[in-house]
Amino acid sequence: MPTPLRSLLLFLVLAASTFTARAQTAPATWIWYPGDFEIWLSNEVQARRVERDAFAPPFWRMDSAYPSVIFTKKTVTTTPEELTVDAEGRYNVTIDGKYVQLGLPKVQLPAGEHTIAIQVFNQKGLPALRVQGAAVRTDKTWTVATTNNTPFNNPSNAAPIAAGAWNFNRADTPPSAFHLPTEPKTPVKTERVGTGTLVDFGQETFGYVRLKNLSGQGRVTFIYGESEDEARSPDTAETLDRFPVTAIAPADFTASSARAFRYVLVQPEGNVRFDDVSMLAEGQPSARRGAFRSSDETINKIWDVSARTLELNSREFYFDGIKRDRWVWSGDANQSYLMNYYLAFDQATVQRTMWALRGKDPVEQHINTILDYSFYWFVSIYDYYLFTGDKETVQRMYPRMKTLMDFVLARRNADGMVEGLPGDWVFIDWPPEPMPKDGELSAEQLLFARSLEAMALCAGVVGDSRAAEYRTLATDLRNKTLSAFWDPAQKALVHQRKDGKQNPLVTRYSNMFAMLFGYLTPAQIESVKTGVILNDKVMRITTPYMNFYELEAMCQSGQFDYVTKELREYWGGMLKEGATSFWEFYDPKEQGAARYAMYGRPFAKSLAHAWGASPLYLLGRYYLGVRPTAPGYSEYDVVPNLGGLEWIEGKVPTPAGDIAVNVTATQIKVTTVGGTGHLKFRSANTPTSPTGAVTKTGDQSYELTLQAGREYVVNYQLVR
Amino acid sequence: MPTPLRSLLLFLVLAASTFTARAQTAPATWIWYPGDFEIWLSNEVQARRVERDAFAPPFWRMDSAYPSVIFTKKTVTTTPEELTVDAEGRYNVTIDGKYVQLGLPKVQLPAGEHTIAIQVFNQKGLPALRVQGAAVRTDKTWTVATTNNTPFNNPSNAAPIAAGAWNFNRADTPPSAFHLPTEPKTPVKTERVGTGTLVDFGQETFGYVRLKNLSGQGRVTFIYGESEDEARSPDTAETLDRFPVTAIAPADFTASSARAFRYVLVQPEGNVRFDDVSMLAEGQPSARRGAFRSSDETINKIWDVSARTLELNSREFYFDGIKRDRWVWSGDANQSYLMNYYLAFDQATVQRTMWALRGKDPVEQHINTILDYSFYWFVSIYDYYLFTGDKETVQRMYPRMKTLMDFVLARRNADGMVEGLPGDWVFIDWPPEPMPKDGELSAEQLLFARSLEAMALCAGVVGDSRAAEYRTLATDLRNKTLSAFWDPAQKALVHQRKDGKQNPLVTRYSNMFAMLFGYLTPAQIESVKTGVILNDKVMRITTPYMNFYELEAMCQSGQFDYVTKELREYWGGMLKEGATSFWEFYDPKEQGAARYAMYGRPFAKSLAHAWGASPLYLLGRYYLGVRPTAPGYSEYDVVPNLGGLEWIEGKVPTPAGDIAVNVTATQIKVTTVGGTGHLKFRSANTPTSPTGAVTKTGDQSYELTLQAGREYVVNYQLVR
Repeated sequence: MPTPLRSLLLFLVLAASTFTARAQTAPATWIWYPGDFEIWLSNEVQARRVERDAFAPPFWRMDSAYPSVIFTKKTVTTTPEELTVDAEGRYNVTIDGKYVQLGLPKVQLPAGEHTIAIQVFNQKGLPALRVQGAAVRTDKTWTVATTNNTPFNNPSNAAPIAAGAWNFNRADTPPSAFHLPTEPKTPVKTERVGTGTLVDFGQETFGYVRLKNLSGQGRVTFIYGESEDEARSPDTAETLDRFPVTAIAPADFTASSARAFRYVLVQPEGNVRFDDVSMLAEGQPSARRGAFRSSDETINKIWDVSARTLELNSREFYFDGIKRDRWVWSGDANQSYLMNYYLAFDQATVQRTMWALRGKDPVEQHINTILDYSFYWFVSIYDYYLFTGDKETVQRMYPRMKTLMDFVLARRNADGMVEGLPGDWVFIDWPPEPMPKDGELSAEQLLFARSLEAMALCAGVVGDSRAAEYRTLATDLRNKTLSAFWDPAQKALVHQRKDGKQNPLVTRYSNMFAMLFGYLTPAQIESVKTGVILNDKVMRITTPYMNFYELEAMCQSGQFDYVTKELREYWGGMLKEGATSFWEFYDPKEQGAARYAMYGRPFAKSLAHAWGASPLYLLGRYYLGVRPTAPGYSEYDVVPNLGGLEWIEGKVPTPAGDIAVNVTATQIKVTTVGGTGHLKFRSANTPTSPTGAVTKTGDQSYELTLQAGREYVVNYQLVR
Repeated sequence: MPTPLRSLLLFLVLAASTFTARAQTAPATWIWYPGDFEIWLSNEVQARRVERDAFAPPFWRMDSAYPSVIFTKKTVTTTPEELTVDAEGRYNVTIDGKYVQLGLPKVQLPAGEHTIAIQVFNQKGLPALRVQGAAVRTDKTWTVATTNNTPFNNPSNAAPIAAGAWNFNRADTPPSAFHLPTEPKTPVKTERVGTGTLVDFGQETFGYVRLKNLSGQGRVTFIYGESEDEARSPDTAETLDRFPVTAIAPADFTASSARAFRYVLVQPEGNVRFDDVSMLAEGQPSARRGAFRSSDETINKIWDVSARTLELNSREFYFDGIKRDRWVWSGDANQSYLMNYYLAFDQATVQRTMWALRGKDPVEQHINTILDYSFYWFVSIYDYYLFTGDKETVQRMYPRMKTLMDFVLARRNADGMVEGLPGDWVFIDWPPEPMPKDGELSAEQLLFARSLEAMALCAGVVGDSRAAEYRTLATDLRNKTLSAFWDPAQKALVHQRKDGKQNPLVTRYSNMFAMLFGYLTPAQIESVKTGVILNDKVMRITTPYMNFYELEAMCQSGQFDYVTKELREYWGGMLKEGATSFWEFYDPKEQGAARYAMYGRPFAKSLAHAWGASPLYLLGRYYLGVRPTAPGYSEYDVVPNLGGLEWIEGKVPTPAGDIAVNVTATQIKVTTVGGTGHLKFRSANTPTSPTGAVTKTGDQSYELTLQAGREYVVNYQLVR
């Protein structure tokens, strides 16, 4: 049957080529001006903050999407195509400069080489576009601009840039319809409290309260509580919602606003009745890639609850806390990014948060109005590139990096240093004792120098000729700062210089930063370790925020016993208090009602605060010891440390997959994915490896090069 | 009855004090961030342009209102007040930094000194606020900012600025509800054309077509025509609207879009039926203060039709043309402002147009992308201040003047001059012959110099220390331009310099500007008059746009006979063609269909174009001769000129009222209002005045000082 066979073959060939063509064509996706979706969404989301029932959007300048943008694509097709155009906003279509869109949703694109331009106007929301043809489809290869070239203009140097896009691939799911997924949850406990109903969902959660069969005339009030005490305190609970009820027939009701809570007191008024209380939990689906397990169940629980804490705050953007604040803060986000690189490795949420924080030009104030928070934004791009190797995002953000840095550079004092100027909030930390924040602060100069290094790095990535200038500025500032603030008598950086004179006060902040940024000589590192980091007389750090850097400095100083003890006591202490997510602040000495109070209000303390999740970072980076040393883990170190535990094991996500590490006192196992790694460890004996060549690099110090996609085993003896 | 009397007295006293308090308290008015209403509205309005049925918003960058603004007022009241708060957007209220607004529309303000702050968030439109109390009411004394100060920030140098406001005084007429008033009109003629109905409204108008008793299933199409030919040309008419009809019972129908037309062809399809065609005309109510009458009925008609032309284009903003373009263009608007100062003296529309044109920072391109159009914007503020003396508006605009000028200054070449750079459109004019637009153009340098003078003036008004710097830049550029472009051989400014070399081409543009700006020596003025302005060999001007400045230069050169002849022939020619408003372009040689063609399309020519109304300006400023010489007509000249007419009379509006002028060959009458005027005239005999002292200032030249609020009569003999 030669003929049928040939037909079949032909069919298979045709089918294959069709499939190939389809495989080459990515799905049409909604596109927009880069950063505009993120800014628009951050406005929506941050305006959901309430202070009890007062509306509380951010106090800093909020920006808008451009109301009119022009999307352009040069197309080459061999056959004519029919394009389906969907837009958020009114639009027009030109092909080769001629209007073709006459009120019809379909556009006929002739074969050959053509330039399609689609202008979308929308001043009620985000102008966005989706075009679907056989081969021509909107994606990041389309460009976008706020201005159209005309036959009269000189070609603009403000060339169109690559369009922004994410994963909005369906015509009926435009960017404006974005919402996080929801999932129904039922309480673990329900209790009558007066005429109300108190329910407990068993753990901190976030979402919309639902009432089954709500009926009657009157009102229903939800008193939300991260603690039971809070839900039982209608007058002082941080969040509450009141809804009028006029339901003749019983109907299910879902609150229109999502809140953070574990407990909720449902208080009906009038003749309002309802059956069950439940909820729709809203959030990103858990996408854990990082993992950690050890011989210590408390540490394991700490890792789990840290993961939960970060996940609760990983929403449209990285929030600092989900109950009260719900704004996006650069200093907090910077830490969330770092934790995320050891948990979900979610690049999209990092990108969104960086766009939202930066906003638009002109820069008139620091990010969140805070001097240090502008610097963390630069530093976070440095980190982002190191962890992900994502040049495209650096390229997209770079113009806004430059204008923010121009703003900073224009505000230097005569010494080329920064200090708090009109409009600036100099934050650093909420310290337990008064601390000067005026004049030149060493911590700010170090963050500034690190930011200049980020500029130099990114300028190099995008090929901007200013790279050398930024590099020089960074080096100069770093040298100047170390000489201006280093006190040879105290062998530490002092906190402040004012009117050219050192204030002898030493704080941990700048000494930690200088150590973490690698700005100190070995001798300075030693003196900072002993004279500052391990010196109880230096003002202690009481926020988990700065605790993040302090514990990192401890790890870098080899003080793993201290860190392990701190994990057990500080985070373990919160677990003992019943925490299902970690807190904004914890003081083991506070008991009873005091545990929940902050900012002078009885329940203002956030019990699900992103910066409480730092064990994720510490355990991944310093215990499992996995960290990139070149962009995107093309090179990386594995420097495991048991930290006093009997064994640890876990995974660290990288762009190429997850690196697995398993460590006991006598064996280290590493499973690699991509890039070249360097396993560095100490051993009391001469280590052996059946899978690689171990090199001695110093007294009891060894190294083994890790190739991609292999499993390594090293037998060694822990140095105690 | 002492007691009742005392009660009555007391009542009267109380009533009087209440009335006084009321009189002192202006009505509560809607307020916003200055410029934001204007930018928001200009987006709405400019996006109403269509190219036939394709949507055609501007091709330049459009900006947005700030989505979150904070309005603040320090209040001192002797009694507590209840404030009614209305906002466009969600909002919160703090008094002395504490939230008081808990979802209620009323706010209780205690007596005493307090600071009210109201934050309004709205990213779907314009955040706006209205607060109504007994004494505390929103108005321009409230301040507004995009950032709130917090207890942590250093006081910002970006201090809150005075809020923007206009005349939205009622709670139920917020800024977003703004629309121009409408008025029903019926056609003067109705005619059957095939299956359609052609109606003629008798004159150019703008509005919504209405159909009485529309019924049936199908579609109705409106073919609009400024000319009858256009309305009869469904395939080539510039504007048309198609509406589906599915009306079982007859109902009146009003088109949802307003268009410019005199004629409309209503073309039903399917079984669609209707009775009468009428319209709702939409526009600013006529508010003529300027007036002009003369012995020449054609000139009088020209003035009337000019007034009508300007009024048709005086809408939400000054448009260049109402049919096709409907965008706001700086060069065109600059002329409309000048005409307006001699007709309605409408400051609000000038302000709105200036805000809309300027948009927001950062400046990334010239206004309308056109180099010269940025300069006209500066010049127009100079003019605005001279005519109105309105310091408040200068103060409000000044920050955006500075940033636009910074943009211009940063784009100077090594010689400190401007030339077309990437992204720039160098326009000048649509010349009848090719004309170079690259390199340094003398016209652009002169507009630049004039803009720097505007900066210096406004810097002085607001007390900016950069005034001297701008003054120096202006003087330097003016001197440099005159020496670089003046050709001693041709005794004129040449058009272009490129690579340091003069191109010998002379055009009228820069020579006119130099004369009008007062940059020429008396000798240069003479040679420019004879060698350029009155020289037929120099490329003629064919657009009414540049004709505006050319005729002004003619007036300044004393060529009134030429101007009067031009009025009669050019504008009178349009009248003979049946114009009911003046055109974008007119060439008496064009006949038949050619009269309406432009830009290569048969009906693209606008028959109601603002720049066609320049006789308003010429007749007011140079025939009646009234013009300010100090801000707001605090000083002014009256230099009447009959221009060959037997008599002229009219009024010129000023901030203090209308100055009336009546001139014959033997008598000049002036009725003054405010300020100090200088009547300047020539007389063949020795003039006498029963009302003032006439001073001889030269050969046949006389002057009389005009005090405020007086009527002056001078008997003289016209110098022929």
